Amino acid sequence: MSFAKLDELNRKLEAIEHAQAMLGVDEAVNMPSGGGAKRAEAMGVLAGLYHETATAPQIGEWIDKAEAEPLDEHQKAAVFEFRRVYTNMTCLSSAFVERQTAERIRSEQLWRELRPKGDWKGFLPAFEGVIATMREEADFRAAALKLDPYDALIEQYDPGGRAAFIEPIFATLKLELKSFIPKAMERQKLKSGNRPKKALNGPYDPAKQKALGEVMMKAIGFDFEHGRLDISHHPFCGGVPTDVRMTTRYSTEDFIPGILGILHETGHGLYEQGLPAAWSHWPSGRARGMAIHESQSLFVEKQIAKSPEFWAWGLPLVREHLGKEALPGWEIDDMLAHVHAIKPGFIRVDADEASYPLHIVLRFELEKDLVSGRLAVKDIPEAWDAKMRDYLGLSTRDNMTDGPMQDVHWPAGAFGYFPSYTLGALIAAQIMAAMERDLPRVRGDIAAGRFDGVTQWRRDKIWQPASRHSIGELIVNATGEALNPQYFLNHLERRYLN
Amino acid sequence: MSFAKLDELNRKLEAIEHAQAMLGVDEAVNMPSGGGAKRAEAMGVLAGLYHETATAPQIGEWIDKAEAEPLDEHQKAAVFEFRRVYTNMTCLSSAFVERQTAERIRSEQLWRELRPKGDWKGFLPAFEGVIATMREEADFRAAALKLDPYDALIEQYDPGGRAAFIEPIFATLKLELKSFIPKAMERQKLKSGNRPKKALNGPYDPAKQKALGEVMMKAIGFDFEHGRLDISHHPFCGGVPTDVRMTTRYSTEDFIPGILGILHETGHGLYEQGLPAAWSHWPSGRARGMAIHESQSLFVEKQIAKSPEFWAWGLPLVREHLGKEALPGWEIDDMLAHVHAIKPGFIRVDADEASYPLHIVLRFELEKDLVSGRLAVKDIPEAWDAKMRDYLGLSTRDNMTDGPMQDVHWPAGAFGYFPSYTLGALIAAQIMAAMERDLPRVRGDIAAGRFDGVTQWRRDKIWQPASRHSIGELIVNATGEALNPQYFLNHLERRYLN
Repeated sequence: MSFAKLDELNRKLEAIEHAQAMLGVDEAVNMPSGGGAKRAEAMGVLAGLYHETATAPQIGEWIDKAEAEPLDEHQKAAVFEFRRVYTNMTCLSSAFVERQTAERIRSEQLWRELRPKGDWKGFLPAFEGVIATMREEADFRAAALKLDPYDALIEQYDPGGRAAFIEPIFATLKLELKSFIPKAMERQKLKSGNRPKKALNGPYDPAKQKALGEVMMKAIGFDFEHGRLDISHHPFCGGVPTDVRMTTRYSTEDFIPGILGILHETGHGLYEQGLPAAWSHWPSGRARGMAIHESQSLFVEKQIAKSPEFWAWGLPLVREHLGKEALPGWEIDDMLAHVHAIKPGFIRVDADEASYPLHIVLRFELEKDLVSGRLAVKDIPEAWDAKMRDYLGLSTRDNMTDGPMQDVHWPAGAFGYFPSYTLGALIAAQIMAAMERDLPRVRGDIAAGRFDGVTQWRRDKIWQPASRHSIGELIVNATGEALNPQYFLNHLERRYLN
Repeated sequence: MSFAKLDELNRKLEAIEHAQAMLGVDEAVNMPSGGGAKRAEAMGVLAGLYHETATAPQIGEWIDKAEAEPLDEHQKAAVFEFRRVYTNMTCLSSAFVERQTAERIRSEQLWRELRPKGDWKGFLPAFEGVIATMREEADFRAAALKLDPYDALIEQYDPGGRAAFIEPIFATLKLELKSFIPKAMERQKLKSGNRPKKALNGPYDPAKQKALGEVMMKAIGFDFEHGRLDISHHPFCGGVPTDVRMTTRYSTEDFIPGILGILHETGHGLYEQGLPAAWSHWPSGRARGMAIHESQSLFVEKQIAKSPEFWAWGLPLVREHLGKEALPGWEIDDMLAHVHAIKPGFIRVDADEASYPLHIVLRFELEKDLVSGRLAVKDIPEAWDAKMRDYLGLSTRDNMTDGPMQDVHWPAGAFGYFPSYTLGALIAAQIMAAMERDLPRVRGDIAAGRFDGVTQWRRDKIWQPASRHSIGELIVNATGEALNPQYFLNHLERRYLN
């Protein structure tokens, strides 16, 4: 049986990935700085071993033969994914990958050095190299996958994601949000009147913040038998589904970003923990790409943890863990005023949920043109500035640091990734709408700290299906219809214009 | 160049070992229990990958050819070790290793269950299986290595260690210690008079104990840029030379065992950190076996940290970190009375430094006879009891828990390991004697918390030579003569009969 050989191979690959994932976590959480050089060497060897194992020529034959074998539905879905992964892993030559990796590392390092100075000119030559090889990569992948070059890049992050599908959705968002944001800001001003925002009352002990975070994680469904929460400079959710390693960082002055960070990563962690354990070594048993992954973190962070119901349950917990005077005189509305502020700015990662998609639309439009060659690298600053002025009313002229040099993605060679952030936000809103239909008491449950229904719904409809279906099918199966930006817009309207 | 191929191969092996070491540390320090099954699977695959990589048939040819290539002294030493390791890795068939591993795991699990009940009879069948395959293994190894079967087992832990070399040394220890222990106990009684020992004054905050431990580690030379200290159930020193992961555990009632445990592991950690970084991927750049490794930990724990000079420096540090009243009224002699108590008992791991070697001599004598077949497994309890009565005046008749079932080594299939503990203690004493000759002010330095000289001596003479020489040459080069038990006996006399 060729399927059995593929099954065995994927167990081996899973084990190497397990080591890579855990070494990655250790590096961010525990490793002393002097351990870095040897760690990088070990990671390089493991990556080589992985690639060698995953791209062995006989695998192609096994897949051909397995497709002709009598298989059940799960196995068929697995073979479909085996082929997708194998095609993606084998369509670039080793020589190309080596050259590209070296270029990306050089470019990313240079970006780290030059971004604070906003030195676009100094960065340009390296960045042009990255863009040139990105275009080569897109062509190689497009030929192997029989896709448009930009779609072939999106495919790396969101299998099945297509620019033609994204375009009308993003066009709708652009149209609606440009007018929504001023209205929301107006409403915000009106609502707050002349009342100043209530003040925080730190310092907040990190150990107590952690205990609070863990109580919330547990309530939302995180299984501490199969995961833990640590500290790292950049919060992330790593590890493996049976051992999910989440991290956050704490500020003693304000605990709210830390808690929201924990809740965001908990969304990722729950997805991983909820995947079907029996197929964890098959790509069809893994998460269905970055957009769905982000939908799970944003569901917890934006749909749940920024809702008034959540804080009806959460505020007393804050006082229980951080002290009675942790938020003196705060009521639910004070917390909402704090977490719902709409204020367009330059920086994507700091953006509120209404401005955020416009940052993404901008990047989507530019990277499409960068891939096709319609946009030259040197013209990025002007194009960026024009779109920022159009979409958010802000100019980045002569401000490279807060303009096109703000994100690590492009300098590191990641093109086609950005759309997932906003697709995730839309999916999260659509899931919440579907859930409210399927579970009419869901908001009351949240206010009472009961998340079982929410968890079970997501387990059945998102986590357990894993990658057995395309992203489109997954959304339809879970919510009853294809991705529809109206749910997100309705969510914004309910939250910000009421 | 075949040498270059071997060099490349060993870089690959080093990277896999890096992953294995770090996953092992993570498992003991961080892993939630639910992560265990997948972790075991991943470790199994990595072990298979390692074995496959290390035993590829072409390696034998590379070694043959490399021996004929023009090489410098370091490279020659490396090739010598490549051959030793390759012969040891290839002399057992995969089928045998699989059968043996299964048997050992079953036996060790059974031992964990039955030891508390002292159920020797229930344990016997599984243990007999382990002994039978151990004898097979010894024969396979003996044939490949052209060694006596027991020596072929010792070789796994202490390359170059030979029973014929150990026998006269252990005979001397047996003779001397049997009469030394009663004298030391007599002296101890006399010295203490009727004064009761001074009492501890806990609870001691683990965080403060850790801070104290870290200050001592740092002073003794531990480099926190290349290592860290964590908590685990069983203290150990793991990781890799560039990133040494030490662990300990803390009791709030008594900080002394925790600190001595930290100092013991620091000895191991310093050895690893002090190995020559440039050859870390060659076996000749690794630690020279378990006896030397144990000599480094025992040097720090027994020679340094149980000396009056150490506590002249250490007692004020204890008060600085744990509080002025941490040890009310204690002087150096009170600490020494605490850490120098001689009291023969049943349990090896709890033994004082004078009784400890007799526990080892007993095991050495028995395992020699077990390997050769002169001793039948069913006769172990009687032989154990006879030797315990002879060497330590204690009977283990009908007490399997504290008798032959006390250690995990044999149930897990480790034969030939025990001698290293006592060889390590002897080497540590001989090193201290050599150091006092080479650095006349060393004890004064220790009393002042200055460990630079001690560290530099060990770096030059033990750590940097790594495995370029045999264990015998290493000891002669470092101390000026072959291993001589008299230094250990002198040390005991100075410490316990003064």
